[in-house]
Amino acid sequence: MSSVNIKRLNSADADFQQRLDELLAFEGAQDENIEKTVVGILADVKARGDAAVVEYTNRFDRLSVAGMAALELPKAELQAALDGLPAERRAALEAAAQRIRTYHERQLGAGFTYTEADGTMLGQMVTPLDRVGLYVPGGKAAYPSSVLMNALPAKVAGVKELIMVVPTPGGEHNALVLAAACLAGVDRVFTIGGAQAVAALAYGTETVPQVDKIVGPGNAYVACAKRRVFGIVGIDMVAGPSEILVLADGSTDPDWVAMDLFSQAEHDELAQSILICPDAAYIEKVQASIDKLLPTMPRRDVIRTSLENRGALILVRDLEEAVAMANRVAPEHLELSLAEPDAWVEKIHHAGAIFIGPYTSESLGDYCAGPNHVLPTSGSARFSSPLGVYDFQKRTSLIRVSKDGAQTLGRIAATLADGEGLPAHAQSARYRLDA
Amino acid sequence: MSSVNIKRLNSADADFQQRLDELLAFEGAQDENIEKTVVGILADVKARGDAAVVEYTNRFDRLSVAGMAALELPKAELQAALDGLPAERRAALEAAAQRIRTYHERQLGAGFTYTEADGTMLGQMVTPLDRVGLYVPGGKAAYPSSVLMNALPAKVAGVKELIMVVPTPGGEHNALVLAAACLAGVDRVFTIGGAQAVAALAYGTETVPQVDKIVGPGNAYVACAKRRVFGIVGIDMVAGPSEILVLADGSTDPDWVAMDLFSQAEHDELAQSILICPDAAYIEKVQASIDKLLPTMPRRDVIRTSLENRGALILVRDLEEAVAMANRVAPEHLELSLAEPDAWVEKIHHAGAIFIGPYTSESLGDYCAGPNHVLPTSGSARFSSPLGVYDFQKRTSLIRVSKDGAQTLGRIAATLADGEGLPAHAQSARYRLDA
Repeated sequence: MSSVNIKRLNSADADFQQRLDELLAFEGAQDENIEKTVVGILADVKARGDAAVVEYTNRFDRLSVAGMAALELPKAELQAALDGLPAERRAALEAAAQRIRTYHERQLGAGFTYTEADGTMLGQMVTPLDRVGLYVPGGKAAYPSSVLMNALPAKVAGVKELIMVVPTPGGEHNALVLAAACLAGVDRVFTIGGAQAVAALAYGTETVPQVDKIVGPGNAYVACAKRRVFGIVGIDMVAGPSEILVLADGSTDPDWVAMDLFSQAEHDELAQSILICPDAAYIEKVQASIDKLLPTMPRRDVIRTSLENRGALILVRDLEEAVAMANRVAPEHLELSLAEPDAWVEKIHHAGAIFIGPYTSESLGDYCAGPNHVLPTSGSARFSSPLGVYDFQKRTSLIRVSKDGAQTLGRIAATLADGEGLPAHAQSARYRLDA
Repeated sequence: MSSVNIKRLNSADADFQQRLDELLAFEGAQDENIEKTVVGILADVKARGDAAVVEYTNRFDRLSVAGMAALELPKAELQAALDGLPAERRAALEAAAQRIRTYHERQLGAGFTYTEADGTMLGQMVTPLDRVGLYVPGGKAAYPSSVLMNALPAKVAGVKELIMVVPTPGGEHNALVLAAACLAGVDRVFTIGGAQAVAALAYGTETVPQVDKIVGPGNAYVACAKRRVFGIVGIDMVAGPSEILVLADGSTDPDWVAMDLFSQAEHDELAQSILICPDAAYIEKVQASIDKLLPTMPRRDVIRTSLENRGALILVRDLEEAVAMANRVAPEHLELSLAEPDAWVEKIHHAGAIFIGPYTSESLGDYCAGPNHVLPTSGSARFSSPLGVYDFQKRTSLIRVSKDGAQTLGRIAATLADGEGLPAHAQSARYRLDA
């Protein structure tokens, strides 16, 4: 097998900035046909409810059910899936769930109130969402870890009803996914998918209750449908291809770094794996490890395509420059594979998650360290956060102005309302003066 | 002047649910022409930068500047606007700014870390966004209070650079808006607007730096442009028409309630004002106040149209039912105009802001109570929150697995990765076992 032809960049080169920009450039194409199909399905489900969902599901998932009732999984089936797991796998899933729960409990937001000298009370109330829909893809991308990572924060937040949708093309159920749903406390499961599932959750049907927010990954149709129903319901971010940036000083076994790059690249051909390192000789060692290890990987074709099309090994002057570059990239996953990583952490301003030190492979975080694996992609860590409990809570402002407070605030408000040309606002404030 | 023909609903009527649904139904039309225009402007500014922004600005705002330099306001001009305000207005603006700052400082999120028995550290780091763009509309909807409400949370969060854009059609500057920008600590101001301003902020030009997030209200072109650039930068929510729901027990002066309904209705003809009350006689009193007071209002035409097309007076059985209805509506603004309001607050699960007791007119919250006046509209309080400091901060997960921790976590992760068919993930975890 030939050497993996992964891009080499050098920050000392004159065209470096341009090459880095090209490497990072990624715009998901917006397909007009997908858009049109999705708009049609959304409107149809909104108008015809269950009947439309059943028709699309029979057509797209090659089923022949008579009605929606046949598309809901009884709770006993989830429990049976969990009970049927091999002991080791069940223990691993339970351990992961427990660790994810413990971490997310730290994110629980609390409200506040304070009372001013004149008796006016101000505050903020934090409440969970009532009902959330969780989209889980069918087929090859059906990951039980993803069920845990999406469902558990919602449950920790106190969401009352969590409704999962998962397509079962050809009627095939994924036992590990159902077991994860059981463990995570999912309340109802419908075996529907695609834009029709998103529509059912967003508008509600006779059988599927309307939710307040839809989370979870999906294909281009699902992503398009989520964007379209945003506003009627909340949605999580629409994720781009997954990425890892490994920042290495040369102290980690190069096989480890190569495998960490592989573990991102094996997701799909658009995934991006980048190594940044100030040690040219070490970069050669990682290249040698890549070439040596790739033939041993079952998913070597996907890994090779991903590394050759989207990956890079970048030589930099020093770690300071490496950190500046990491902040420029704002990666989804950042590994600090450094002998002394701690001092560098606070210099990182933009990353979804930071994996600190050589023992912290991204894969540990993907499954069971505790923090969420749903992270901002494509540089959006500049302005967004990992999925968390806060995504399933919302805040309400509280204002209780006392009679005394209304005298002070009323004058300020009336003056400003006059300035903005809103006389009813001003009058409404003035009514409370000396009343 | 004729009596205001505002809709009457009664929760005891057979068709009540249907009428309530119709009252609340609002879908902003998506105009294909606006979409097409915006897509063109975005692409043009992305490709040609300053030159395109200058051309669009000269054309749409009837200016004739030679270059971008002429479209940046020097800081001295902001200071001059503040210094030039009448003393009372300046004092009101400063008092409002101080109260808004104080409230929002309570929202500052902190990170956390914790270390497990085997030395593994988990945590979450909270950091401010680097650079934020603030859109401020020109013309009649240019509100200095809106500048304060958008800019101050960003500054409290620690955003390093806050860039305001505000169109100046015909070259007219709004002194109160510039004064508010000065007070709020806005760093740079460009007199540009529309989709071209959104594009400049999202992509950056030779002169306008690229931002990480764009906030602030705008017209249909601005809203469309913000939706389009979402993903490249963060955006705040795209607001629908403003609404108020007043829940009254009959103990408040009906003139006050009428004026509170007016203060929402005077915003624009699509604004929605609803009264819910269990006391039929009191509803008649409010109607009488509406009829009596409307002729005195300078913006009476807008108020009448809004009340007649979108408003309602709803008779309910009791306050329990009123609260259930408020939760169903999930209003942007909820006034609890009750003699004993406190016990009812925690029964409210969905509202942008709750104005508690008869002295708390919405107008006090709009300007100076302290909480933000940018609130979720159209029922989106079910899943979203007031604009806050948290919108200008993001979180990064921290994971530092110890050598001991890698033994435990590596086995769990490898087992789960095997189950998901991701062998590089499994191998990456196994490398850390007994290493």
